[in-house]
Amino acid sequence: MRVVITGAAGFLGKKLTRQLIEKGTLAGPDEKQHPITEMLLVDLLDSPIPDAPGIAIEAMVGDITKADTIARVFAKPCDSCFHLAAVMSGQSEEDFDLGMSVNMDGTRNILQALRAQANTPRFVMASTAATMGGDLMPEIIRDNTAPQPTNSYGTWKAVCELMVNDFSRKGFINGRVVRLPTIVVRPGKPNAAASSFCSGMIREPLQGDPANVPVPPDTEIWVASPRSAVHFFIQTHELPGDTIGITRIITPPGLTVTAREMAEALKRVGGEEAYNRLTWEIDPPISTIVCGWAGKWESKRARAWGYNIDPDFDSIVKIFMEDDIERK
Amino acid sequence: MRVVITGAAGFLGKKLTRQLIEKGTLAGPDEKQHPITEMLLVDLLDSPIPDAPGIAIEAMVGDITKADTIARVFAKPCDSCFHLAAVMSGQSEEDFDLGMSVNMDGTRNILQALRAQANTPRFVMASTAATMGGDLMPEIIRDNTAPQPTNSYGTWKAVCELMVNDFSRKGFINGRVVRLPTIVVRPGKPNAAASSFCSGMIREPLQGDPANVPVPPDTEIWVASPRSAVHFFIQTHELPGDTIGITRIITPPGLTVTAREMAEALKRVGGEEAYNRLTWEIDPPISTIVCGWAGKWESKRARAWGYNIDPDFDSIVKIFMEDDIERK
Repeated sequence: MRVVITGAAGFLGKKLTRQLIEKGTLAGPDEKQHPITEMLLVDLLDSPIPDAPGIAIEAMVGDITKADTIARVFAKPCDSCFHLAAVMSGQSEEDFDLGMSVNMDGTRNILQALRAQANTPRFVMASTAATMGGDLMPEIIRDNTAPQPTNSYGTWKAVCELMVNDFSRKGFINGRVVRLPTIVVRPGKPNAAASSFCSGMIREPLQGDPANVPVPPDTEIWVASPRSAVHFFIQTHELPGDTIGITRIITPPGLTVTAREMAEALKRVGGEEAYNRLTWEIDPPISTIVCGWAGKWESKRARAWGYNIDPDFDSIVKIFMEDDIERK
Repeated sequence: MRVVITGAAGFLGKKLTRQLIEKGTLAGPDEKQHPITEMLLVDLLDSPIPDAPGIAIEAMVGDITKADTIARVFAKPCDSCFHLAAVMSGQSEEDFDLGMSVNMDGTRNILQALRAQANTPRFVMASTAATMGGDLMPEIIRDNTAPQPTNSYGTWKAVCELMVNDFSRKGFINGRVVRLPTIVVRPGKPNAAASSFCSGMIREPLQGDPANVPVPPDTEIWVASPRSAVHFFIQTHELPGDTIGITRIITPPGLTVTAREMAEALKRVGGEEAYNRLTWEIDPPISTIVCGWAGKWESKRARAWGYNIDPDFDSIVKIFMEDDIERK
């Protein structure tokens, strides 16, 4: 099996790469497991190449909006492609044309390259809870609730979801989409995203720094751990093609937690001292954005298919402490 | 007001052009009525120019996927654009790339040209009931039911709906989408579309020709008359911008009728002789497609906004006899 990962230098891309190496096999067109023999890691930045005996791993720096990158990436046909590369919400909002170009046209470039292959490769794309929003949103998001993004990132992801559906229906690819919850706890630094605090309110105090919670304590957020996110990608890849049906979009089961519950988990798992590094100053613009997000998701299909689920928010805090904490 | 109509040579385009001339005014950015002074009729084919004292009407032959057409169409900024040009379902299914190019990229070209204008033009796009289908479809389609197209035409229209939403949210355009029911009775000849019989079973017998109904008599179809379709476009144009909210997609109220009810209306309105020209031979492939369509639509927002509605199927048959029948 030759596997291509785009966005491989990102935090989820790196974890997915390592998990695939550990797993060692993936489902092929016959739905049986086959050894992964080659991996191509694509990103705008250099992707780290982990040690993986028996797997030829190559890293490639390139831009999926460019024809020459696409030609290089798919010069050799792949069996599976995990497509994580994207311009994220903050930047998509700031630079509309860049977001459209990378998130929509870049994805289409990949889909067209996969379609041109002689085989029917499996394709797994990361999508987002940011596809939901707006004034017609029901209290619980179901598998057949209309995307109503209130941001450009969510728009282009919803567009790509439709493309993956149709390319799959036509038999050009064997496509699947994972509509990710807010992934908590992200390692690294706070950023300008409205969701930044969801990770920051756990990460910073555990690393000895203060953090502010800019939303009311009762605000519901739909979250999953980075480990779950990686499992979602792989579980979605492994679903037999004929199980999925027309709609290739899979909403995995996240946890619905309030900001207060997140803080309480921090206290239980990380201790009083960490908890006391939290401040609660409402930031009205951020609060408005976050309160407009969908807190409750049914995830009926994914639950029926036995998707991995984080048992509680305490576990999510522990996963960060085990996998990603940067101790000073 | 300068008004651009794409797909102006099509059967709905021609009717819309005439109706706009008759109306004479359209809502402007101040939500007040302003006289239509210029109209540009764009199509791949030559658009007929109706007589319209006081309105400078120009026809232009061009392809919306081509930069030079877009430059010519929007050389002079418009105030309103009705976008009806599209590659329809049969052809989109046969020629995937053509459908994608015209329906997605062509629409984006227009949106980008409108965005480049100094004003914020009103934009009304025709979308389709073919955005719905698939295995997650509820019994009644609501305004927040996810598009799950089972055809490429519906896919690209659903993609464009999302683009219109986001271009509107960003303030680039003042966009609106009309998700049309099956329009019955279309004038002209039968075609290869699965929906062809919906018009054919009324049109052909009334014009003296036999017609077959290829679906079981209880099959539900969601329909509206061509007159209603034109009203939907104009009503949707006229909605005040701040009424609509984030989701710019409007599902107008169609009629849910069975094939049997359609035939009975034909007998009542067109007579026994016309009715006896119908045969009922199930065509399994067509029947499967049509039975997969959504028969019941809530259209809650459009009903609340007082959208025009065909009172019954008898009226729809009468409209054809008044407007479009070709007597031999």
